[in-house]
Amino acid sequence: MDYRGIFQDAVDQLHAEKRYRVFANLERMVGKFPRAVYRSGGTAREVTVWCSNDYLGMGQNDMVIDALCTAAGKMGSGAGGTRNISGTNHPLVELELELADLHGKEAALVFTSGFISNEASISTIARLLPNCLILSDELNHSSMIEGVKRSGSEKKIFRHNDLDHLEELLRAADPQRAKLIVFESVYSMDGDIAPIEAIADLADKYNAMTYIDEVHAVGMYGSRGGGITDRDGLSDRIDIIEGTLAKAFGALGGYITGSRAVIDAVRSYAPGFIFTTALPPAIAAAATASIRHLKTSQDERTAHQRQAQATKEILSSAGFPVMPSETHIVPLLVGDPELCKMASDRLLDVHGIYIQPINYPTVPRGTERLRITPSPFHDDQLIGELCSALTEVWNTLGIPFATGSDEGTVKSDRIVKLTVSKAGG
Amino acid sequence: MDYRGIFQDAVDQLHAEKRYRVFANLERMVGKFPRAVYRSGGTAREVTVWCSNDYLGMGQNDMVIDALCTAAGKMGSGAGGTRNISGTNHPLVELELELADLHGKEAALVFTSGFISNEASISTIARLLPNCLILSDELNHSSMIEGVKRSGSEKKIFRHNDLDHLEELLRAADPQRAKLIVFESVYSMDGDIAPIEAIADLADKYNAMTYIDEVHAVGMYGSRGGGITDRDGLSDRIDIIEGTLAKAFGALGGYITGSRAVIDAVRSYAPGFIFTTALPPAIAAAATASIRHLKTSQDERTAHQRQAQATKEILSSAGFPVMPSETHIVPLLVGDPELCKMASDRLLDVHGIYIQPINYPTVPRGTERLRITPSPFHDDQLIGELCSALTEVWNTLGIPFATGSDEGTVKSDRIVKLTVSKAGG
Repeated sequence: MDYRGIFQDAVDQLHAEKRYRVFANLERMVGKFPRAVYRSGGTAREVTVWCSNDYLGMGQNDMVIDALCTAAGKMGSGAGGTRNISGTNHPLVELELELADLHGKEAALVFTSGFISNEASISTIARLLPNCLILSDELNHSSMIEGVKRSGSEKKIFRHNDLDHLEELLRAADPQRAKLIVFESVYSMDGDIAPIEAIADLADKYNAMTYIDEVHAVGMYGSRGGGITDRDGLSDRIDIIEGTLAKAFGALGGYITGSRAVIDAVRSYAPGFIFTTALPPAIAAAATASIRHLKTSQDERTAHQRQAQATKEILSSAGFPVMPSETHIVPLLVGDPELCKMASDRLLDVHGIYIQPINYPTVPRGTERLRITPSPFHDDQLIGELCSALTEVWNTLGIPFATGSDEGTVKSDRIVKLTVSKAGG
Repeated sequence: MDYRGIFQDAVDQLHAEKRYRVFANLERMVGKFPRAVYRSGGTAREVTVWCSNDYLGMGQNDMVIDALCTAAGKMGSGAGGTRNISGTNHPLVELELELADLHGKEAALVFTSGFISNEASISTIARLLPNCLILSDELNHSSMIEGVKRSGSEKKIFRHNDLDHLEELLRAADPQRAKLIVFESVYSMDGDIAPIEAIADLADKYNAMTYIDEVHAVGMYGSRGGGITDRDGLSDRIDIIEGTLAKAFGALGGYITGSRAVIDAVRSYAPGFIFTTALPPAIAAAATASIRHLKTSQDERTAHQRQAQATKEILSSAGFPVMPSETHIVPLLVGDPELCKMASDRLLDVHGIYIQPINYPTVPRGTERLRITPSPFHDDQLIGELCSALTEVWNTLGIPFATGSDEGTVKSDRIVKLTVSKAGG
């Protein structure tokens, strides 16, 4: 048995399919966001990052960094144990209270990542419900799919944001059966939003539980940063709201919020929560500082939306194939994995702009794209430079510009409909 | 469908079985380790923690905290993205080089937790091997069990550290079949050590891959802190060495090290690695500082072993049922879940000593225990105070002292043999 050969073959296959991923070695710079030092082949130079999930730039916020360093100086660098084995640190307890309040729920539970929060929570909730049927949006994130798989429950996949299909599946199920609808608010690769209220209505009608992933919305939407459910006044219509501390809040970790009973059950039964070291007090303190700030300050959200809209408009006007998006996410269609990689490489090498290629399996073949995430710190000048750089790259590589649609946006069925269920990596 | 009632019933069942877990709200204090502020019912007071997994107290090490704060001040509080989406920060790249060197391997891969490093790596490695047979020690940690389950591969459980049983299973399998042996070096609830060299010999004989979990050994054993495989000169006999940054190294995260091919394959195929935000640069820098220090300094390891041995000797001499342990872990048998919880509560309430109860399912029913983890900072005076407090608690609650064995240690079959496979929470 040639073990090494088997693993090498698995890697070679990715090279052959032009989807082998090379991670860019980046060093962010506090005070200069979105600039970063890019290291490659023994050289280092400054670049502009246009694809960060630190959506609001809170990772470089002085208050957040101060909170982190103050907690580390007082309490140390790690938690020192699992939640049960001496790892429940005071800043983590405070963070959970803050999160429950953010979403207007009775309780919250923090995990070391958004991935594990979805995987552990969905699998545990579904396992505790006898003979549970899971109804899952086809574009749900990989972590939710892993949770559904680990539950061992029967699952039905509904077409993306398709209420008729969801109702059809709910109607076909035994009315007495436990049901769990799992979906996202903002889908991160297309930037579209789920019909949350209508899904909650269906859940009421068919007596189903609801679980929403708000990781691409918390901090950024709602007057307190509670996500799309906050913005639309729907927090109390959803049973479990899941979110992340690692994107708009600029730290690390994931969480769920909900009723005391469901949170206590997940806390008590989920291996992925129980058997792992708690989040360090410094990270918890940083997250709390960020959440508290964004509960009252609207400046970051206003500037974020303004710069995202400006980016869309300028790129659309210049004829780029900007895919339709209701949110801050600006996907630019390339439609070919090799061209997508070449465009990303050329942006970096020639223009000092970093936007990683998004290829299969993160998005379906044929919809390979550059996913641009403007922040409040991507000012008009940076947007102008991005537009110029993209123009050079599009022309040099012969990537198609937008055709036959208003304002340069691309609305073909191929692009809007063809997407797969592993977003975010 | 009364959803809330179902979750409440699940929680009530734990209360009824006396194994509902209450997390102690602790605030560690840099410079005063192992002292911490314990908050309960509106009051706060100082206690001594005797059950931390910050085994060497590196979480309060000035160099480590400085590295953390310096990186946070320069690069911010979070990574800002997945490894692929702009989250591969420079300190994380350096950390992976440091870890590969620590174990003498070609490459390393860092995860946000030890739990996810086991789950993602074992499941991905086994899935990439066609028709893989997994041979798993019966006492493997929950995270390894989750990895085995997620792989979907056939598994055979061998009796704990039982070479004859392992060989029997290897011999019975098709010689042409891919095989993966997964086991730990130090088992955390009993403190015993696997026969690593003999397992490696069997792996050679039957052409199996080997995967070892060294989370309770890295930093603490070996002249460079590379774990038991380092101490015994066996690093090159094991294919994949997994470890944690969250115990002896005092930070957060987990990792694997191995050949370039297997690391690249896990990097490229594991959803739990790909679709999650990278570890923050500050945490990576803290971990690197800790690892580098422990690669050369023997002081922490020497003091650690000395104080662990002193704790065992003093408690054994006083007649306590110290369970046999080859390592720094000192398990004290109680043998009843309610008594175990009461002992823990009384130690805290009356004596200001925190040792959380270890009950089923972390250990088998009938072997409930207090698991004591002396560090270099638990000095002889603290050991003396612990012994006095335990004497009062044992006498007051009527917990049996050791009987019929040398030096007060307990060696009954019931205790040594009866253990389950979910350790660490």
